[in-house]
Amino acid sequence: MRTSAVLAMALVSAYACVDAAPGSPPDAAELMEADRAFAGAVARAGRDAWVSWFAEDGAQIQEGVGEVRGHEAIRELMAGLDDPGYSLTWEPLRADIAASGDLGWTTGTYRSAMTDADGKVRRGEGRYVTIWRRQSDGTWKVVMDLGNPTSTPEAG
Amino acid sequence: MRTSAVLAMALVSAYACVDAAPGSPPDAAELMEADRAFAGAVARAGRDAWVSWFAEDGAQIQEGVGEVRGHEAIRELMAGLDDPGYSLTWEPLRADIAASGDLGWTTGTYRSAMTDADGKVRRGEGRYVTIWRRQSDGTWKVVMDLGNPTSTPEAG
Repeated sequence: MRTSAVLAMALVSAYACVDAAPGSPPDAAELMEADRAFAGAVARAGRDAWVSWFAEDGAQIQEGVGEVRGHEAIRELMAGLDDPGYSLTWEPLRADIAASGDLGWTTGTYRSAMTDADGKVRRGEGRYVTIWRRQSDGTWKVVMDLGNPTSTPEAG
Repeated sequence: MRTSAVLAMALVSAYACVDAAPGSPPDAAELMEADRAFAGAVARAGRDAWVSWFAEDGAQIQEGVGEVRGHEAIRELMAGLDDPGYSLTWEPLRADIAASGDLGWTTGTYRSAMTDADGKVRRGEGRYVTIWRRQSDGTWKVVMDLGNPTSTPEAG
């Protein structure tokens, strides 16, 4: 094989590699930022924001329900986010990202609070995992989200 | 720059890329196989098998407990797997893998059954997510595992 052909093949391989991870090397801190931005958007805009952070085929697994997949089904599941008495906040604790920068996950703690008509507040907290896929436009979207309560909600 | 230097750099880049995804392109079917092998191993060997499929820093999130991380803590959490009256089985439904072939996840359904001293069986079922990282020896290990029951366990 001629050297130029070897060089061309090597360059094609090298380009394919660079193409899989454009710009700087993948950094899990990107996912920490994405998850915090997701939480901030939901705090401001409720259910619309929640749904918009999911990929088109993104899914949630919900206790007592199973898997709920796609924007329409997720919108229906998360109606509570539009209840003015309900709040859901979370904070990622760590993140992990693939070498190719296209897939990663975050895990952290969430807190929920529901204020009923009598002003009583039921609080819950737990741990969650969110799996992220980078979209063709470069943004990160949620492809899977689920969590577990660490305690039974208590009136407080 | 001399051509040989360019060639050397290109080959180094190509090698780094190939090194991240040795052999054939990443295939999510690998993770379906890994998850089924994990389930088979646990059916045969209980808790020892469960622990051995986790990465050293792998973690579980468990309802009422939170995150449990590392082999020793996971071993303690999963004592039930060594109870002869208890069984836990699962089957992955789909898998997703990063382009770099180093990170991926599976999701599926699990079933549990606990036979008490009177021969009564309490059955549970739910959905789970398992996140996998390829180790330096090429094997896949669990870095995160959690799930949610789809129904309250019923005596049957």
